[in-house]
Amino acid sequence: MIHAPLRNDTFLRALLREPTEYTPVWLMRQAGRYLPEYRATRARAGSFLALAQNPELACEVTIQPLDRYALDAAILFSDILTVPDAMGLGLYFADGEGPRFARPLRDEASILALGAPDPNRELRYVMDAVRTIRGALAGRVPLIGFSGSPWTLAVYMIEGGGTDDFREVKTMLYRRPDLMLHLLNVLTEAVADYLNAQIEAGAQAVMIFDTWGGVLTSSQYLKYSLGPMQRVVERLHRERDEPVGAGVGLDAGGGPSGMQRVRVPSIVFTKGGGQWLEPLSACGADAVGLDWTTELSDARARIGSRCALQGNLDPMALMGEDAQIRAEVARVFESFGVPQVGTGHVFNLGHGISQHTRPEAVSALVDAVHAYGRKMRAPGA
Amino acid sequence: MIHAPLRNDTFLRALLREPTEYTPVWLMRQAGRYLPEYRATRARAGSFLALAQNPELACEVTIQPLDRYALDAAILFSDILTVPDAMGLGLYFADGEGPRFARPLRDEASILALGAPDPNRELRYVMDAVRTIRGALAGRVPLIGFSGSPWTLAVYMIEGGGTDDFREVKTMLYRRPDLMLHLLNVLTEAVADYLNAQIEAGAQAVMIFDTWGGVLTSSQYLKYSLGPMQRVVERLHRERDEPVGAGVGLDAGGGPSGMQRVRVPSIVFTKGGGQWLEPLSACGADAVGLDWTTELSDARARIGSRCALQGNLDPMALMGEDAQIRAEVARVFESFGVPQVGTGHVFNLGHGISQHTRPEAVSALVDAVHAYGRKMRAPGA
Repeated sequence: MIHAPLRNDTFLRALLREPTEYTPVWLMRQAGRYLPEYRATRARAGSFLALAQNPELACEVTIQPLDRYALDAAILFSDILTVPDAMGLGLYFADGEGPRFARPLRDEASILALGAPDPNRELRYVMDAVRTIRGALAGRVPLIGFSGSPWTLAVYMIEGGGTDDFREVKTMLYRRPDLMLHLLNVLTEAVADYLNAQIEAGAQAVMIFDTWGGVLTSSQYLKYSLGPMQRVVERLHRERDEPVGAGVGLDAGGGPSGMQRVRVPSIVFTKGGGQWLEPLSACGADAVGLDWTTELSDARARIGSRCALQGNLDPMALMGEDAQIRAEVARVFESFGVPQVGTGHVFNLGHGISQHTRPEAVSALVDAVHAYGRKMRAPGA
Repeated sequence: MIHAPLRNDTFLRALLREPTEYTPVWLMRQAGRYLPEYRATRARAGSFLALAQNPELACEVTIQPLDRYALDAAILFSDILTVPDAMGLGLYFADGEGPRFARPLRDEASILALGAPDPNRELRYVMDAVRTIRGALAGRVPLIGFSGSPWTLAVYMIEGGGTDDFREVKTMLYRRPDLMLHLLNVLTEAVADYLNAQIEAGAQAVMIFDTWGGVLTSSQYLKYSLGPMQRVVERLHRERDEPVGAGVGLDAGGGPSGMQRVRVPSIVFTKGGGQWLEPLSACGADAVGLDWTTELSDARARIGSRCALQGNLDPMALMGEDAQIRAEVARVFESFGVPQVGTGHVFNLGHGISQHTRPEAVSALVDAVHAYGRKMRAPGA
C-alpha cells in the first residue's frame, strides 16, 4: 500500500523536537461522544464494541473531528482493551458502565495459560482500521496508533472492569509478585507486537496509555508499570517506509523508488505520574504526556531537554466559556514558555475529552492554540 | 471537665518532632467496617449516620480498635461531611453508595445564603462525642479531632456526592471563580470554628483531610485548596489547658492549679498532593500526611526538616500475608531512614483502611511498627 505524501507533519516534528511553525494540537478521545456525528455513527453500529470492530465505521469516526477542527493528528479509534479481549477474556460493555471482562484473571492457572495474540490474526480488524484510515486521511495529518500499557491492561484483566480500590490487582501484587511479573511479561510481548503491527499497517506515531500507573508506590511503579513499558518501547520499530514527503525522513531525499525511511515517534503517558517524570522520560520514548496536575514549566525544567512534552489542559477547562478557554490555553503556553531548539510541545488535554463538552468549545481551543503558538514564534515575540 | 493525665504522648511528641522511644502508629479509618465489633455497633445504631450522631455509640467505636491493637492515638469517629450537613444541605447515605446531599449547591443564591454554623449548637453532637471519648480514654492515648478541608467540602457540596470527573465543581471553578472563592471563604470560617470547638471540647491534635486537592492543577491547588487550608491552620488554637502530664507542655511544670498549657499539633493531608509538598509543608501545620505514591525518603529530603511526616503504607499492603505486611512495614521505615533530632514520623496508612482487611493483618502491622521503631533507635542500630 502506497500512502499519499504527508501535508502536515507539524505533530511529528514537535515530537522529534524539531522546529515547527506553530504548536500542534490533538485531543485525547477526540473522536467521541461529545460530537453529534459520532453519536449518530455509534447508533448505526449498534454498540461501542461493534463500532470499534468495524474498520469502515472506526475510520469514519476517526476522521469526524478532523472535518470540524484544524487538528494536527488523527488517532485510531479503538478500545484500550482489544489486546486482553484477543487473549480470550471476553470484553463487553454493561449498559451505562465501563468495560468488563467475562473471564477476569483470578487464579494462577488462567494466568499461566495466557499467550500473546498474533495481532495480524486475532486483532486483524484493528490493522484493517489503520489501513482504512490511512487511505481516508490521504496525507492530511499523521495517524497515531496506541495501546494500553502492560500494567494498565493487567489491572483491567485482574479486576474484571473498573475499580475504586484496586483490591484484586494489588492483592495479587502483594501476595504473588512472581505471578504479576509473569503476566506483565506476556503483556509486554503482546503490546509490543500489537504496536509494531499498527506501525506496519500505517501508524505514523504510537502512544502508550498508562492509565493506572499512578495508583502504585514509587518502587512498584518502576517495577510493574514503567519497567514493562520501557521494554515495550525498546522493542518498537522506530522507522517505517513512506513515500518521500510522507514523514520526517532519516535522510535528505528518497531513493529511486520514491520511498524513504521515516521515523515513528512514540509517546508514553502515565496518568498521575507527575512524581516520576525523570524515570519516565528516560524510558526511550520521544515524548511524555502530562496530565493537568503537573506544571509544564516544572516538567520542562525537569525533563524538557530529554523529551518532547504533550499536554496538559484540564479537560474540564472546556466547561468554561470561550474567553475562559482561551485564557486557560494561554496559561498552558505561558507555563511551557518560549519553544527553543531541542524542545518540543504538542498541545493536548491532560486526559480524555468529556462527553459533556460543547463542540464549539473545541473550536475555541484549537483556534487559540494555533494563534498563540504562531504569536509565540513571531520575531520579537 | 478535668481530664486524666496522658499516659502515652508518643504520638504528640512525634508530631512536634521531639524524640520518642519508638515510632507511634494509628490508622486512618481505624474505627471501621473491617472490625466485627464495629459492624455490631453500627447494626445496633441502625445506620452510619445514626452511629456518627450518637455520642455514646461514636465513643464506643472510637475505642474499639484501641482494645484490640496497641495504637498510639484515637481519632474521633465522625463523618467528613458534618459541617455541610449543619449548613443545611441534608446529608444522607444511599444504600451501598457513598454520601449524598439532598440539596447540593447549584446556583449563586444557594451559595450566597450559606453561613458558618455554630459548632456548639448545630454540631453539638460532635462536641459531646469528643468529651465522651476523652472521658472514656482516661489518658490512654491522645484523641485526634478532624475536618474535611474547605475545598474537599466544597467538592461534595457542589457535586452532591461522589464524582468521577468533578464536572459540576470544576464548571463552577472555571466559570465562576468569584463564587467558588466566596464559598471557600465561608467554609474556611466554618472549618476553623469546627476544629477549634473540637479542641475546646478536648481534641489533643487535629487533622485536616484534603481528599480532593489532588484533582486540581498546581495553581488551582494553591488558590482553592491549600490557601483556604492555610487560613484554617492560621486560625487554629495551638494550645489548650490540660492537667500536668496530660500533653506536651509549653513550660516545665504546672501552676498551683495543677494545670498547664499544652500544644495541640495539627496535620494536613492532601491525597495525591505529592507534587506540592513544599508549599503544603509551609502552611503552618506541624505535620504533613502522605499517601503511598510519595517516597518518604523523597519527602524527608524535601520537607522533613520543616514538618513531621505521617504515613504512608498502601492500605492494600494489608491484603498480603503477615510476613509480607512486615516486609512492607520495613520498607516504609527504610524509606524514612533513621530518625534524627528535629525529624518526626508517625506511622500510618496512605489512605483509609479497607473494609476488606483481615483484623489480624492490623495486629501484624502494629506489632511490626513498634518492634522496628524500637530496633531502629537501639544503640548501635
